[in-house]
Amino acid sequence: MNRFQITILGCGSAIPTTMHNPPSQLVDLNEKLFMIDCGEGTQIQMRKFKARMGKLHSLFISHLHGDHIFGLPGLLSTLSMLGRTADLNIYAHKEISLMIKPFLIYMGNHMSFKINLIPLNPEREELIFENRSIRIFSFPLKHRIATNGFLFEEKESARHIIREMIDFYKIPLTEIPNIKEGADFITEEGIVIPHNRLTSAASPSRRYAYCSDTAYAPEIIPFIRNVELLYHEATFAESELERAGETYHSTARQAAEIAKAAEVKQLVIGHYSSRYNELGLLLKEAIAVFPNTELASEGKVFDL
Amino acid sequence: MNRFQITILGCGSAIPTTMHNPPSQLVDLNEKLFMIDCGEGTQIQMRKFKARMGKLHSLFISHLHGDHIFGLPGLLSTLSMLGRTADLNIYAHKEISLMIKPFLIYMGNHMSFKINLIPLNPEREELIFENRSIRIFSFPLKHRIATNGFLFEEKESARHIIREMIDFYKIPLTEIPNIKEGADFITEEGIVIPHNRLTSAASPSRRYAYCSDTAYAPEIIPFIRNVELLYHEATFAESELERAGETYHSTARQAAEIAKAAEVKQLVIGHYSSRYNELGLLLKEAIAVFPNTELASEGKVFDL
Repeated sequence: MNRFQITILGCGSAIPTTMHNPPSQLVDLNEKLFMIDCGEGTQIQMRKFKARMGKLHSLFISHLHGDHIFGLPGLLSTLSMLGRTADLNIYAHKEISLMIKPFLIYMGNHMSFKINLIPLNPEREELIFENRSIRIFSFPLKHRIATNGFLFEEKESARHIIREMIDFYKIPLTEIPNIKEGADFITEEGIVIPHNRLTSAASPSRRYAYCSDTAYAPEIIPFIRNVELLYHEATFAESELERAGETYHSTARQAAEIAKAAEVKQLVIGHYSSRYNELGLLLKEAIAVFPNTELASEGKVFDL
Repeated sequence: MNRFQITILGCGSAIPTTMHNPPSQLVDLNEKLFMIDCGEGTQIQMRKFKARMGKLHSLFISHLHGDHIFGLPGLLSTLSMLGRTADLNIYAHKEISLMIKPFLIYMGNHMSFKINLIPLNPEREELIFENRSIRIFSFPLKHRIATNGFLFEEKESARHIIREMIDFYKIPLTEIPNIKEGADFITEEGIVIPHNRLTSAASPSRRYAYCSDTAYAPEIIPFIRNVELLYHEATFAESELERAGETYHSTARQAAEIAKAAEVKQLVIGHYSSRYNELGLLLKEAIAVFPNTELASEGKVFDL
């Protein structure tokens, strides 16, 4: 199975603490790194956790609050110093140009690579990227400003060739691509060996959903149903339910309610308010509703 | 004696490493924090080393290369979230407005405090700040773009009152300010007690100089002569002398030559190139010329 791995670079919120960096994550899918959000210090976190700058494929920015974007100038500048030549796509609300354009002016157009700003649709779900092995969707969350969640979906892979059957029937190598695509094999004697006997089941298609920042929003459930892993913000404990509503954030219990209703396999919570030195309460409140919950922490890796 | 303390928040250079953050320092002088440079992650370093945001008085930016300023948006935004009301003076090259103005537009003018941009003179030494207890000077360094060094100078304090003498001559409290200012005391019998018998020597006036980034530049020596502590960049080892010249940086030996010629008491070197995992060589090369040299490191505190 291909690697499908999420690394937490930061899971704090607006005010950084000694425990948590501002939001950022890396989705490592099939040797490409997709970055979600880029809070201040993200490039430093990448070094700390030995993520390779050269593998960075594209950036996905949920919304334009500072804690999700203030790491961009440093990261972009470093990528240029390292001599990146491949275009870098940044998927974000269109107003990110208010920040990126002055940055490019500041850099005096001395960047080693081109940045493409690709506006997200804040109103509805959209397929925003697709290649041979994955699809990435954005969908609207419910926050104070236009905010998007992201869904990373591995494409269904071809069935796996069973090596022993190939040897047994002495199937020529030239036939293997056809068999992978679904063809049967016909022996010299004219016997049809069906595709299903020559191959084993394809690896299941895996999905990861990122929902931060957002108020409790059951309307996102259709976008994230049954995912292997859901990252959902849990800025507050239940005692701050009112404050969560006012600021368009979620409590840990609300994150768990979403996970439960969407029937996801595992929930990771993060985006903790700086008021919590100890996260046991948030975890406890989430687990009461959705037992398979984990706390995000800097450097933690989730393998799907 | 008042506190006069320098804390290193970052002493790396353009490309952050797992060992070193981009440049920033705090000068804590008489309970006010003066920040020099503000690389990405500076606010996070402040938290780590328990520096109080509320004590931040003003910012001094040596030059506008990204590694010295990319921490500004995050820091300014956090100060606003924390409800700062006092104006914040930022002393920097005038073109810092290219970065700060778009930031203020991005913030939608929702800042809780006013930012004053105070342009530095890139051509000659200038007194840029003065209050009851300190003077701060900027002076030109020699770098690829306009760059300033800074000198923090404690003002000579008044002589200290000797408590026992006051008691012995029964000097009324109302006379003490005059004595501090230099007056003698005349007893009821008309005997003159000279000022020098009532007071002890003032604390010596201490000075700290910051020189980064800069090529080897003996012309800065008059500005920093005899300081208690000199921070001088030492981006390279002597084997990279040519590269140092091309990039307008210094080698450790060159930093030490400056310290020696300026007859400073102590030298701290920093702004290490990311190529050095181990700094023993830089220290060795500096010590050979100027023995009282120390390596900067994140969190290290220098008490003057």
